[in-house]
Amino acid sequence: MAHIDLGNDIPGIRGLFTYRPDTGAVLSNLGEALLRGDSTLSRGERELIATYVSHLNECRYCAGSHGACAAAQLQGGSGQVEATLADPAAAPVSAKLRALLAVAARVQASGRSVTDEDLAAARAEGATDREIHDTVLIAAAFCMFNRYVDGLAALTPDDPAYYAATGTRLAEHGYLA
Amino acid sequence: MAHIDLGNDIPGIRGLFTYRPDTGAVLSNLGEALLRGDSTLSRGERELIATYVSHLNECRYCAGSHGACAAAQLQGGSGQVEATLADPAAAPVSAKLRALLAVAARVQASGRSVTDEDLAAARAEGATDREIHDTVLIAAAFCMFNRYVDGLAALTPDDPAYYAATGTRLAEHGYLA
Repeated sequence: MAHIDLGNDIPGIRGLFTYRPDTGAVLSNLGEALLRGDSTLSRGERELIATYVSHLNECRYCAGSHGACAAAQLQGGSGQVEATLADPAAAPVSAKLRALLAVAARVQASGRSVTDEDLAAARAEGATDREIHDTVLIAAAFCMFNRYVDGLAALTPDDPAYYAATGTRLAEHGYLA
Repeated sequence: MAHIDLGNDIPGIRGLFTYRPDTGAVLSNLGEALLRGDSTLSRGERELIATYVSHLNECRYCAGSHGACAAAQLQGGSGQVEATLADPAAAPVSAKLRALLAVAARVQASGRSVTDEDLAAARAEGATDREIHDTVLIAAAFCMFNRYVDGLAALTPDDPAYYAATGTRLAEHGYLA
Protein backbone atom coordinates (compact mmCIF):
# COMPACT_ATOMS: atom_id res chain seq x y z
CA MET A 1 0.00 0.00 0.00
CA ALA A 2 1.23 3.48 -0.84
CA HIS A 3 2.17 5.84 2.00
CA ILE A 4 -0.71 8.17 1.06
CA ASP A 5 -4.23 7.57 -0.28
CA LEU A 6 -3.70 8.05 -4.02
CA GLY A 7 -7.36 7.51 -4.89
CA ASN A 8 -6.32 5.02 -7.58
CA ASP A 9 -4.65 1.61 -7.79
CA ILE A 10 -2.42 2.31 -10.81
CA PRO A 11 1.07 0.86 -10.24
CA GLY A 12 4.26 2.87 -9.94
CA ILE A 13 4.81 6.43 -11.04
CA ARG A 14 1.63 6.52 -13.14
CA GLY A 15 -0.43 6.26 -9.96
CA LEU A 16 1.47 9.29 -8.64
CA PHE A 17 0.97 11.19 -11.91
CA THR A 18 -2.77 10.53 -11.66
CA TYR A 19 -2.80 11.77 -8.05
CA ARG A 20 -1.22 15.11 -9.04
CA PRO A 21 -1.72 15.56 -12.79
CA ASP A 22 -0.03 18.95 -13.18
CA THR A 23 3.37 17.76 -11.97
CA GLY A 24 2.64 14.40 -13.64
CA ALA A 25 2.42 16.12 -17.03
CA VAL A 26 5.69 18.01 -16.48
CA LEU A 27 7.50 14.85 -15.36
CA SER A 28 6.14 12.93 -18.37
CA ASN A 29 7.50 15.66 -20.63
CA LEU A 30 10.88 15.32 -18.93
CA GLY A 31 10.98 11.56 -19.50
CA GLU A 32 9.99 11.99 -23.15
CA ALA A 33 12.66 14.67 -23.78
CA LEU A 34 15.45 12.78 -22.04
CA LEU A 35 14.76 9.23 -23.15
CA ARG A 36 13.17 9.72 -26.58
CA GLY A 37 14.09 13.24 -27.75
CA ASP A 38 16.88 14.04 -30.24
CA SER A 39 20.19 12.51 -29.15
CA THR A 40 23.24 10.77 -30.55
CA LEU A 41 22.70 8.16 -27.81
CA SER A 42 20.12 5.61 -28.94
CA ARG A 43 16.87 5.23 -27.06
CA GLY A 44 18.01 1.82 -25.86
CA GLU A 45 21.28 3.27 -24.56
CA ARG A 46 19.46 6.01 -22.66
CA GLU A 47 17.03 3.51 -21.18
CA LEU A 48 20.01 1.43 -20.05
CA ILE A 49 21.48 4.43 -18.21
CA ALA A 50 18.08 5.00 -16.55
CA THR A 51 17.85 1.32 -15.63
CA TYR A 52 21.34 1.23 -14.15
CA VAL A 53 20.73 4.29 -11.94
CA SER A 54 17.37 2.86 -10.81
CA HIS A 55 19.11 -0.43 -10.00
CA LEU A 56 21.73 1.44 -7.92
CA ASN A 57 18.91 3.23 -6.09
CA GLU A 58 17.22 -0.16 -5.56
CA CYS A 59 14.02 1.14 -7.11
CA ARG A 60 12.39 -2.10 -8.21
CA TYR A 61 9.54 -0.42 -10.11
CA CYS A 62 11.75 1.87 -12.21
CA ALA A 63 14.50 -0.70 -12.76
CA GLY A 64 11.87 -3.23 -13.88
CA SER A 65 9.98 -1.00 -16.27
CA HIS A 66 12.97 0.82 -17.79
CA GLY A 67 14.96 -2.41 -17.90
CA ALA A 68 12.19 -3.97 -19.98
CA CYS A 69 12.03 -0.86 -22.16
CA ALA A 70 15.81 -1.01 -22.70
CA ALA A 71 15.59 -4.71 -23.52
CA ALA A 72 12.87 -3.97 -26.10
CA GLN A 73 15.17 -1.51 -27.89
CA LEU A 74 18.66 -3.02 -27.54
CA GLN A 75 19.83 -5.70 -29.98
CA GLY A 76 20.98 -7.89 -27.08
CA GLY A 77 17.60 -7.79 -25.36
CA SER A 78 17.16 -8.63 -21.69
CA GLY A 79 20.43 -10.61 -21.57
CA GLN A 80 22.33 -7.43 -22.43
CA VAL A 81 20.51 -5.49 -19.70
CA GLU A 82 21.10 -8.17 -17.07
CA ALA A 83 24.80 -8.53 -17.93
CA THR A 84 25.22 -4.74 -17.68
CA LEU A 85 23.65 -4.57 -14.23
CA ALA A 86 25.64 -7.59 -13.01
CA ASP A 87 29.03 -6.17 -14.08
CA PRO A 88 28.84 -2.61 -15.44
CA ALA A 89 32.63 -2.35 -15.93
CA ALA A 90 32.45 -5.27 -18.36
CA ALA A 91 29.02 -4.41 -19.80
CA PRO A 92 28.42 -5.81 -23.31
CA VAL A 93 27.93 -2.32 -24.75
CA SER A 94 30.19 0.16 -26.56
CA ALA A 95 33.26 1.41 -24.69
CA LYS A 96 31.70 4.90 -24.84
CA LEU A 97 28.51 3.74 -23.14
CA ARG A 98 30.49 1.83 -20.51
CA ALA A 99 32.34 5.07 -19.68
CA LEU A 100 29.06 7.02 -19.56
CA LEU A 101 27.56 4.40 -17.23
CA ALA A 102 30.50 5.06 -14.89
CA VAL A 103 29.68 8.80 -14.98
CA ALA A 104 26.03 7.96 -14.22
CA ALA A 105 27.11 5.92 -11.18
CA ARG A 106 29.07 8.92 -9.88
CA VAL A 107 26.04 11.17 -10.28
CA GLN A 108 23.88 8.59 -8.49
CA ALA A 109 26.20 8.81 -5.47
CA SER A 110 26.51 12.61 -5.58
CA GLY A 111 26.87 15.29 -8.24
CA ARG A 112 30.02 16.33 -6.43
CA SER A 113 31.69 12.96 -7.00
CA VAL A 114 32.07 13.35 -10.80
CA THR A 115 35.78 13.80 -11.54
CA ASP A 116 37.79 15.19 -14.45
CA GLU A 117 39.19 11.67 -14.85
CA ASP A 118 35.70 10.20 -15.30
CA LEU A 119 35.00 12.70 -18.06
CA ALA A 120 38.42 12.29 -19.70
CA ALA A 121 37.78 8.53 -19.84
CA ALA A 122 34.40 9.10 -21.51
CA ARG A 123 35.87 11.60 -23.99
CA ALA A 124 38.69 9.17 -24.83
CA GLU A 125 35.98 6.77 -26.01
CA GLY A 126 34.35 9.46 -28.13
CA ALA A 127 31.71 10.90 -25.79
CA THR A 128 30.70 14.45 -26.72
CA ASP A 129 29.85 17.29 -24.32
CA ARG A 130 26.20 16.85 -25.17
CA GLU A 131 26.33 13.12 -24.43
CA ILE A 132 28.00 13.84 -21.09
CA HIS A 133 25.34 16.47 -20.34
CA ASP A 134 22.52 14.12 -21.18
CA THR A 135 24.02 11.25 -19.18
CA VAL A 136 24.33 13.49 -16.10
CA LEU A 137 20.77 14.78 -16.47
CA ILE A 138 19.28 11.31 -17.07
CA ALA A 139 21.12 9.98 -13.99
CA ALA A 140 20.03 13.00 -11.92
CA ALA A 141 16.42 12.70 -13.12
CA PHE A 142 16.24 9.04 -12.11
CA CYS A 143 17.55 9.97 -8.65
CA MET A 144 14.33 12.02 -8.54
CA PHE A 145 11.95 9.50 -10.14
CA ASN A 146 13.27 6.65 -7.95
CA ARG A 147 12.84 8.72 -4.76
CA TYR A 148 9.36 9.87 -5.81
CA VAL A 149 8.22 6.27 -6.39
CA ASP A 150 9.78 4.69 -3.30
CA GLY A 151 9.41 7.73 -1.02
CA LEU A 152 5.64 7.37 -1.41
CA ALA A 153 5.77 3.54 -1.58
CA ALA A 154 4.03 3.50 -4.96
CA LEU A 155 2.47 0.14 -5.86
CA THR A 156 5.23 -2.13 -7.20
CA PRO A 157 3.96 -5.30 -8.94
CA ASP A 158 5.82 -8.59 -8.49
CA ASP A 159 4.76 -10.16 -11.80
CA PRO A 160 7.56 -9.99 -14.44
CA ALA A 161 4.84 -9.92 -17.12
CA TYR A 162 3.76 -6.49 -15.85
CA TYR A 163 7.20 -5.02 -16.53
CA ALA A 164 7.54 -6.74 -19.90
CA ALA A 165 4.23 -5.24 -21.03
CA THR A 166 5.15 -1.81 -19.63
CA GLY A 167 8.54 -1.86 -21.34
CA THR A 168 6.99 -2.72 -24.69
CA ARG A 169 4.37 -0.01 -24.33
CA LEU A 170 6.94 2.64 -23.38
CA ALA A 171 9.23 1.62 -26.26
CA GLU A 172 6.34 1.88 -28.72
CA HIS A 173 4.39 4.85 -27.42
CA GLY A 174 6.68 6.79 -25.08
CA TYR A 175 5.98 8.76 -21.95
CA LEU A 176 3.32 11.27 -22.95
CA ALA A 177 -0.21 10.51 -21.77
CA MET B 1 34.89 25.99 -14.96
CA ALA B 2 32.03 23.69 -15.87
CA HIS B 3 32.79 20.09 -16.86
CA ILE B 4 31.53 20.79 -20.41
CA ASP B 5 31.65 23.83 -22.71
CA LEU B 6 28.27 25.42 -22.05
CA GLY B 7 28.79 28.25 -24.54
CA ASN B 8 27.71 30.75 -21.89
CA ASP B 9 28.94 32.02 -18.54
CA ILE B 10 25.59 32.14 -16.75
CA PRO B 11 25.93 30.83 -13.18
CA GLY B 12 24.28 27.71 -11.84
CA ILE B 13 21.34 25.88 -13.31
CA ARG B 14 20.41 28.76 -15.63
CA GLY B 15 23.62 28.18 -17.56
CA LEU B 16 22.57 24.54 -17.99
CA PHE B 17 19.04 25.56 -19.04
CA THR B 18 20.55 27.84 -21.69
CA TYR B 19 22.77 25.00 -22.94
CA ARG B 20 19.80 22.68 -23.47
CA PRO B 21 16.67 24.86 -23.63
CA ASP B 22 14.10 22.10 -24.19
CA THR B 23 14.85 20.30 -20.93
CA GLY B 24 15.51 23.71 -19.33
CA ALA B 25 11.92 24.75 -20.05
CA VAL B 26 10.52 21.51 -18.59
CA LEU B 27 12.65 21.81 -15.45
CA SER B 28 11.62 25.46 -15.01
CA ASN B 29 7.98 24.37 -15.21
CA LEU B 30 8.67 21.77 -12.53
CA GLY B 31 10.22 24.34 -10.19
CA GLU B 32 7.31 26.72 -10.73
CA ALA B 33 4.68 24.03 -10.07
CA LEU B 34 6.38 22.65 -6.97
CA LEU B 35 7.57 25.84 -5.31
CA ARG B 36 4.96 28.38 -6.39
CA GLY B 37 1.88 26.43 -7.54
CA ASP B 38 -1.23 25.87 -5.42
CA SER B 39 -0.37 24.40 -2.03
CA THR B 40 -1.34 24.60 1.61
CA LEU B 41 2.40 24.91 2.32
CA SER B 42 3.53 28.50 1.89
CA ARG B 43 6.08 29.40 -0.76
CA GLY B 44 8.60 30.16 1.97
CA GLU B 45 8.02 26.77 3.60
CA ARG B 46 8.52 24.97 0.28
CA GLU B 47 11.70 26.94 -0.44
CA LEU B 48 12.95 25.95 3.02
CA ILE B 49 12.44 22.25 2.19
CA ALA B 50 14.34 22.78 -1.09
CA THR B 51 17.12 24.62 0.74
CA TYR B 52 17.45 21.92 3.39
CA VAL B 53 17.74 19.11 0.82
CA SER B 54 20.27 21.14 -1.20
CA HIS B 55 22.24 21.72 2.00
CA LEU B 56 22.25 17.97 2.74
CA ASN B 57 23.46 17.33 -0.82
CA GLU B 58 26.14 20.01 -0.28
CA CYS B 59 25.03 21.85 -3.40
CA ARG B 60 26.30 25.33 -2.67
CA TYR B 61 24.59 26.96 -5.66
CA CYS B 62 21.11 25.60 -4.93
CA ALA B 63 21.35 26.00 -1.16
CA GLY B 64 22.48 29.60 -1.64
CA SER B 65 19.85 30.67 -4.14
CA HIS B 66 16.89 28.81 -2.60
CA GLY B 67 18.03 29.77 0.91
CA ALA B 68 17.91 33.42 -0.13
CA CYS B 69 14.51 32.88 -1.77
CA ALA B 70 13.21 31.23 1.43
CA ALA B 71 14.61 34.10 3.51
CA ALA B 72 12.83 36.61 1.26
CA GLN B 73 9.49 34.91 1.93
CA LEU B 74 9.70 33.75 5.55
CA GLN B 75 8.90 36.15 8.39
CA GLY B 76 12.12 35.20 10.19
CA GLY B 77 14.31 35.94 7.17
CA SER B 78 17.81 34.55 6.81
CA GLY B 79 18.16 33.92 10.56
CA GLN B 80 15.25 31.46 10.36
CA VAL B 81 16.85 29.68 7.39
CA GLU B 82 20.26 29.47 9.07
CA ALA B 83 18.82 28.18 12.36
CA THR B 84 16.87 25.51 10.46
CA LEU B 85 19.95 24.25 8.63
CA ALA B 86 22.04 24.31 11.82
CA ASP B 87 19.57 22.24 13.86
CA PRO B 88 16.60 20.96 11.82
CA ALA B 89 15.10 19.03 14.77
CA ALA B 90 14.78 22.33 16.65
CA ALA B 91 14.03 24.51 13.60
CA PRO B 92 12.11 27.72 14.42
CA VAL B 93 9.19 26.69 12.18
CA SER B 94 5.83 25.00 12.80
CA ALA B 95 5.88 21.51 14.29
CA LYS B 96 4.27 20.32 11.04
CA LEU B 97 7.06 21.75 8.90
CA ARG B 98 9.70 20.30 11.25
CA ALA B 99 8.15 16.86 10.74
CA LEU B 100 8.03 17.37 6.96
CA LEU B 101 11.70 18.42 6.95
CA ALA B 102 12.47 15.08 8.62
CA VAL B 103 10.59 13.30 5.81
CA ALA B 104 12.58 15.33 3.26
CA ALA B 105 15.84 14.23 4.90
CA ARG B 106 14.77 10.59 4.57
CA VAL B 107 14.00 11.09 0.86
CA GLN B 108 17.38 12.78 0.36
CA ALA B 109 19.09 9.66 1.72
CA SER B 110 16.88 7.24 -0.23
CA GLY B 111 13.21 6.96 -1.15
CA ARG B 112 13.28 3.56 0.52
CA SER B 113 14.22 5.04 3.90
CA VAL B 114 10.87 6.80 4.51
CA THR B 115 9.09 4.95 7.32
CA ASP B 116 5.50 4.71 8.51
CA GLU B 117 6.73 6.32 11.76
CA ASP B 118 8.04 9.38 9.87
CA LEU B 119 4.66 9.82 8.22
CA ALA B 120 2.71 9.19 11.44
CA ALA B 121 4.77 11.92 13.12
CA ALA B 122 3.98 14.36 10.30
CA ARG B 123 0.27 13.47 10.37
CA ALA B 124 0.20 13.93 14.15
CA GLU B 125 1.24 17.54 13.54
CA GLY B 126 -1.51 18.01 10.96
CA ALA B 127 0.26 17.20 7.69
CA THR B 128 -2.14 16.11 4.93
CA ASP B 129 -1.54 13.46 2.29
CA ARG B 130 -1.05 16.20 -0.29
CA GLU B 131 1.53 17.97 1.89
CA ILE B 132 3.39 14.68 2.35
CA HIS B 133 3.25 14.07 -1.41
CA ASP B 134 4.56 17.53 -2.21
CA THR B 135 7.32 17.30 0.40
CA VAL B 136 8.49 13.98 -1.06
CA LEU B 137 8.42 15.33 -4.62
CA ILE B 138 10.21 18.60 -3.71
CA ALA B 139 12.91 16.63 -1.89
CA ALA B 140 13.22 14.19 -4.80
CA ALA B 141 13.35 17.01 -7.36
CA PHE B 142 16.17 18.74 -5.51
CA CYS B 143 18.10 15.47 -5.47
CA MET B 144 17.92 15.89 -9.27
CA PHE B 145 18.59 19.63 -9.48
CA ASN B 146 21.56 19.37 -7.08
CA ARG B 147 23.10 16.50 -9.06
CA TYR B 148 22.53 18.29 -12.37
CA VAL B 149 24.30 21.43 -11.12
CA ASP B 150 27.24 19.76 -9.38
CA GLY B 151 27.51 16.79 -11.74
CA LEU B 152 28.36 19.27 -14.51
CA ALA B 153 30.25 21.63 -12.16
CA ALA B 154 28.01 24.56 -13.08
CA LEU B 155 29.49 27.97 -12.26
CA THR B 156 28.95 28.64 -8.53
CA PRO B 157 29.58 32.26 -7.48
CA ASP B 158 31.24 33.00 -4.14
CA ASP B 159 29.71 36.45 -3.60
CA PRO B 160 26.78 36.36 -1.10
CA ALA B 161 25.29 39.34 -2.96
CA TYR B 162 24.74 37.12 -6.00
CA TYR B 163 22.53 34.76 -3.99
CA ALA B 164 20.65 37.57 -2.26
CA ALA B 165 19.78 39.10 -5.63
CA THR B 166 18.82 35.71 -7.09
CA GLY B 167 16.61 34.89 -4.09
CA THR B 168 14.77 38.20 -4.38
CA ARG B 169 14.27 37.75 -8.13
CA LEU B 170 12.94 34.21 -7.71
CA ALA B 171 10.61 35.26 -4.89
CA GLU B 172 9.22 38.08 -7.02
CA HIS B 173 9.16 36.58 -10.50
CA GLY B 174 9.41 32.81 -10.11
CA TYR B 175 11.02 30.17 -12.25
CA LEU B 176 9.55 30.64 -15.70
CA ALA B 177 11.77 32.34 -18.26
